[in-house]
Amino acid sequence: MKIAIDAMGGDNAPNAVVEGVKEAISHYDGVEFILFGDEEQIKPLLNESSERISIHHTTEKVENDDEPARVVKKKKNASMVLMAEAVKNGDADACISAGNTGALMSAGLFKVGRIKGIERPALSPTLPTIDGSGFLLLDVGANVEAKAQHLMQYGIMGSVYVENVRQIKAPRVGLLNVGTEDGKGTELTKQAFEMLEEAPINFVGNVEARDLLEGVADVVVTDGFSGNVALKSIEGTAMSMFSMIKSVFSKNLKSKLAAGMVKSDLRGIKDQLDYSEYGGAALFGLAAPVIKAHGSSNGRAIFSAIKQTYSIVEQDVSYLIQQDVEAMNEGKESQND
Amino acid sequence: MKIAIDAMGGDNAPNAVVEGVKEAISHYDGVEFILFGDEEQIKPLLNESSERISIHHTTEKVENDDEPARVVKKKKNASMVLMAEAVKNGDADACISAGNTGALMSAGLFKVGRIKGIERPALSPTLPTIDGSGFLLLDVGANVEAKAQHLMQYGIMGSVYVENVRQIKAPRVGLLNVGTEDGKGTELTKQAFEMLEEAPINFVGNVEARDLLEGVADVVVTDGFSGNVALKSIEGTAMSMFSMIKSVFSKNLKSKLAAGMVKSDLRGIKDQLDYSEYGGAALFGLAAPVIKAHGSSNGRAIFSAIKQTYSIVEQDVSYLIQQDVEAMNEGKESQND
Repeated sequence: MKIAIDAMGGDNAPNAVVEGVKEAISHYDGVEFILFGDEEQIKPLLNESSERISIHHTTEKVENDDEPARVVKKKKNASMVLMAEAVKNGDADACISAGNTGALMSAGLFKVGRIKGIERPALSPTLPTIDGSGFLLLDVGANVEAKAQHLMQYGIMGSVYVENVRQIKAPRVGLLNVGTEDGKGTELTKQAFEMLEEAPINFVGNVEARDLLEGVADVVVTDGFSGNVALKSIEGTAMSMFSMIKSVFSKNLKSKLAAGMVKSDLRGIKDQLDYSEYGGAALFGLAAPVIKAHGSSNGRAIFSAIKQTYSIVEQDVSYLIQQDVEAMNEGKESQND
Repeated sequence: MKIAIDAMGGDNAPNAVVEGVKEAISHYDGVEFILFGDEEQIKPLLNESSERISIHHTTEKVENDDEPARVVKKKKNASMVLMAEAVKNGDADACISAGNTGALMSAGLFKVGRIKGIERPALSPTLPTIDGSGFLLLDVGANVEAKAQHLMQYGIMGSVYVENVRQIKAPRVGLLNVGTEDGKGTELTKQAFEMLEEAPINFVGNVEARDLLEGVADVVVTDGFSGNVALKSIEGTAMSMFSMIKSVFSKNLKSKLAAGMVKSDLRGIKDQLDYSEYGGAALFGLAAPVIKAHGSSNGRAIFSAIKQTYSIVEQDVSYLIQQDVEAMNEGKESQND
């Protein structure tokens, strides 16, 4: 297996990226890595060379404020773009970047391309639940406007991933909505509800944002705008609360003492809510796996994203998605005959 | 001032409602209350009678699973419906219910009616921020589908309320979006962005859900679907985190000891994130104030909602909104001349 990595993507690049790759090299026997980026910066970080790591030298890179739609054309030699091209050319089986999310979606869409039958790819992180099992949320912003058909396909894609990579049998697929009763919500959710009921998945109906962290479903589908709002509300609330707790515990000597007594358990909560533990956000619906690692990824988070990518390739998730979508479309055609 | 209250609405009715009213009676001199509900249940809770509290007896009430759109017709004698009717008839200046949200919106819309010029009312809770000042979020579900024009009016309504009741000069109005840059989001947010820039408010541009609790704006406008998702994501994350923290602190003797040492400070965080402290969710855009108290309101939360209602009536927020909307519409007409 060959994985292409954007060594220049993310806040801690290239250090964190190289660190994650080195951990993966010692963890996996048969995986090779191609690092796209500035050789001068990358090489010193590698210490000893491994024949399973190669560097594709480039000095151009995508910045956070680059306009996503233009990157593929304007920055042809950017590490991220060349990385995606390597997948397109068959030089790598999958790719990972912690850089500009929008640019990665463009590079994925225009270089790697969609699976036949999938109308829109979905950006899909796994978010934490309090029982530690996590749930897949799609879409969180690959497409801010969605049609019911897209949400139905998100349900299929998410189901395939969670069943095969996260090893949850018949994963529960929920539709994010403003209430749990059938018939709730917008025209979009009403139509999507009907289509999800017909899809070959374990659809459990509408779910509310309030219950997401309680593990109400294994896969939650929604349009990219609402998904983005849910993701960032959860992230923001957790971060704000941690900062409030931190200030309580550093208030005075007594509170510092108390902090010392529950430190490891509180860190446990933080780890449990740290979704980099579940890997990056996959762009499902593309012909090969394209993984977005969190922008602030450290070496450990990059390694998580690599592990996730490894499983996606190993389980051939892109192929399974394609099979399911084809079967679904054929079913429809024969119904129409 | 006369305030009509649905004594049978909410999980803790009628006890919590009566408790809140009694607190308000001793807090305010000139306010009278009409309690709508079962006299047999209410009277014993009142202890001594006050000439400023009257009971409008009815045994019918709205249940949580009643279909909102039908309540007004099917349950004409329900406490909530009669309460709204009292406002319509001029027997009360405003009304409060902790019952079925959808039903209250229907009762508000069909009994109290809209302000002329306002196309859609918005359900608008004040959510907590870590600095304790809070922000108004509208809409959280009065209308799951919104047009740009509605979001612009939400901006005006929210601005009037926060400026006059919460006493924040030139409140910062933000548009909830998937990124902070101009031109982000859906067709809806792009159009709303332009209209909000033209509106007579302090529009600060796009804001992300991640920054809401950090106090990035005093008023945040969005469509009812996304607002509902944001509200419930924030609520759910906070609740899940509190339950995780609670289990850490009750794990063993050492952690229980630590809990004792920071108990009051941790409760401080909980209070700070408790948005019933900021009152209920107002239904802005109606001809008179209609306030939705949280379903799980205790006496204190009902009292908060009463205080808020008092200020809204005192500051004549409905009238000020009407003035602003009229001025805006006249401005447009004269532009079109």
